[in-house]
Amino acid sequence: MARIVMKFGGTSVGDLDRIRRVARLVASEAKQGNEVAVVVSAMSGETNRLVAMADDLSADSKLGGSIDDEYDAIVASGEQVTTGLLAIALRRLGITARSWQGWQLPLTTDGAHAVARIADINTDEISPSLSDGTVGVVAGFQGISPTGRIATLGRGGSDTSAVALAVALKADRCDIYTDVDGIYTTDPRIVPEARRLNRIAFEEMLELASLGAKVLQTRSVELAMNNNLPIRVLTSFTEDASENPGTLVCHEDETMEERVVSGVAYSRDEARITLMRLSDEPGIVARVCRAMAEANIIVDMIVQGRSAKKDVANLTFTVGKRDLDKAITALNNSREMIGFEGLKHDGNVCKVSIVGIGMRSHTGVAQTMFEALAERNINVQVIATSEIKISVLIDAEYTELAVRALHNAFNLAEAS
Amino acid sequence: MARIVMKFGGTSVGDLDRIRRVARLVASEAKQGNEVAVVVSAMSGETNRLVAMADDLSADSKLGGSIDDEYDAIVASGEQVTTGLLAIALRRLGITARSWQGWQLPLTTDGAHAVARIADINTDEISPSLSDGTVGVVAGFQGISPTGRIATLGRGGSDTSAVALAVALKADRCDIYTDVDGIYTTDPRIVPEARRLNRIAFEEMLELASLGAKVLQTRSVELAMNNNLPIRVLTSFTEDASENPGTLVCHEDETMEERVVSGVAYSRDEARITLMRLSDEPGIVARVCRAMAEANIIVDMIVQGRSAKKDVANLTFTVGKRDLDKAITALNNSREMIGFEGLKHDGNVCKVSIVGIGMRSHTGVAQTMFEALAERNINVQVIATSEIKISVLIDAEYTELAVRALHNAFNLAEAS
Repeated sequence: MARIVMKFGGTSVGDLDRIRRVARLVASEAKQGNEVAVVVSAMSGETNRLVAMADDLSADSKLGGSIDDEYDAIVASGEQVTTGLLAIALRRLGITARSWQGWQLPLTTDGAHAVARIADINTDEISPSLSDGTVGVVAGFQGISPTGRIATLGRGGSDTSAVALAVALKADRCDIYTDVDGIYTTDPRIVPEARRLNRIAFEEMLELASLGAKVLQTRSVELAMNNNLPIRVLTSFTEDASENPGTLVCHEDETMEERVVSGVAYSRDEARITLMRLSDEPGIVARVCRAMAEANIIVDMIVQGRSAKKDVANLTFTVGKRDLDKAITALNNSREMIGFEGLKHDGNVCKVSIVGIGMRSHTGVAQTMFEALAERNINVQVIATSEIKISVLIDAEYTELAVRALHNAFNLAEAS
Repeated sequence: MARIVMKFGGTSVGDLDRIRRVARLVASEAKQGNEVAVVVSAMSGETNRLVAMADDLSADSKLGGSIDDEYDAIVASGEQVTTGLLAIALRRLGITARSWQGWQLPLTTDGAHAVARIADINTDEISPSLSDGTVGVVAGFQGISPTGRIATLGRGGSDTSAVALAVALKADRCDIYTDVDGIYTTDPRIVPEARRLNRIAFEEMLELASLGAKVLQTRSVELAMNNNLPIRVLTSFTEDASENPGTLVCHEDETMEERVVSGVAYSRDEARITLMRLSDEPGIVARVCRAMAEANIIVDMIVQGRSAKKDVANLTFTVGKRDLDKAITALNNSREMIGFEGLKHDGNVCKVSIVGIGMRSHTGVAQTMFEALAERNINVQVIATSEIKISVLIDAEYTELAVRALHNAFNLAEAS
């Protein structure tokens, strides 16, 4: 007997038949004697419908300040509906179940509306209820602010709700059911022979998530890693457990170490900025970073290049594509403080990365990567590395070519 | 400056343009310096959509017992959405506003899911917030159970929420905005010359509501009467206050006493049962009523008639039309205990009533009523009276004829 948290996203509960299927998956775990809490998202499409109404009413509003608190009250209703519907579907199968809203646990957040972070999950009521054999159906994505208002965790927050709840409940594992059957070596839409991984280390998953793989939310992986909680990613579209092994995200083990590279990720959400003819003096990078931080913009890859002229450098870095205009304005406003002569930018770029904990102990990985790219004449604009990943910024039109080349260069289609 | 509770039903907030109009009505009261709490229903159609999903999932379920607690969690989301949307629309007009869910006040109920009764409304937080000039947008129809679950007040419960909130907030009045512009002397679809009343006494409104007039919920009128809180019924479909006087429901005053009859109500939701050849002995009515009470059926009009045979009586009474089958079964099961020989029933009947507090001090009202019906050859099957009303049960096909005859006989089209 184990204590399990199961999480189902919007697509998995997208209509009543899918909710019935989810109920059967949950019932199957419960009937094996497990204590089960289920975290659910809003039915797919529902959050967008609610946001559209809120946006329509607030359009062009400069008057009333932020409306994020009311936006939260509106969209949180989506998860509320799913919890009730799934509880009913479970009772229909003879399973004792009840719904839990964020405020009923309560799940307390820092109160930053629309992007709240979880501060605490009180399990005083739900934990004994699970032990009594009642399946708890918990609304994901939502909690309360310190003043008792509804606060949501932002898009994708249901993953984090599920992992945080599993940690708080001291669950044995957290099963994230989604519309894919696991974590792949890369995007199968680009590389058809991409392979589902049986296991992946937390650190790798964390890099993959932050580098563009969209299956799990970064925050949820971080939380699981810090609490050594295994996450299983699997599909909700089959009811046959034997055909649905999924991918286990856990601490690295010996099997994994045999693998040098586990996956290839890519992100098209990047934009490149180059500041030209900066004076090549200490503190120049700090000044650029300060200008970006003050504008609330995250700087990702960053590289300093010497220009032909002595004591003068160029600085190239990347920001999120949707922050590009804001970044250019902020830089131009700080032109004198930073001291640069020219600014170039390019939104038509892509970041391609290889990730693998095996890179720690293997040499030659970078060489293999850059040779594979060079063979296809793919020009690398910026490079960024960490202990377990190498990322390159390239022209966006080479994205698929680069991903296929790297997937092939590291033999990712073959089981390790 | 006054403290006002405004209530808007589902039709009044049925789409975003209507929500904008409601926001303008609320803003107008707030800008006059009034402290305003607004109670809202779910957008029209929304509750039905949610109930349909819950019904679909629970269909034919005999396994899991009651699902009313989850039904409540699901449908309460409808009001939640409206509160957020209206708060946004108000901010758009420069009005400070925030939403309040039932659990945030909290509004505590007895916990009878789907048909909960309000036990208490805590105003410790909302009352100072209103005094600070923040419009409070409160979700109608919902509260929490003693164990902290969501509990709804049943259909039409938003009127009761509004009146109870107004009482708890010590408001000066409660304005119920709806899709009609006041209380009429009778249904204008039957009598085109029916007239809007400027004022009506609580007692009259209570009788009209329970006799079939659907504008206000009986419980809300009762609550307002017991707390001497004036209710104004007016339309949300005009923004010109001078053209929207509505009807004030309040304690009787001198103007009203000049009126003998205030309105004619009718209800087609009745069914008649006649038990034949009962032994004419004390306690026979009590035995019939006990059989009905045990089946949870409310007996309304009741009349005992002597049959031709000595010591034998007939007993005729009415029940709600939807309870008819259940009543017949219960009576047949108690046939020996009650002791009757035959049972006749008729679902094709209508209860037509005249209501007026002036009847207390005027004679001849009954005579005028029965003469008007007799002139049209309308056969009266059962009669029920109270201090301020007379109801008759007639064949349903005479409904419109009877309503028009009575409206005319008491000159209700003319202003008193």
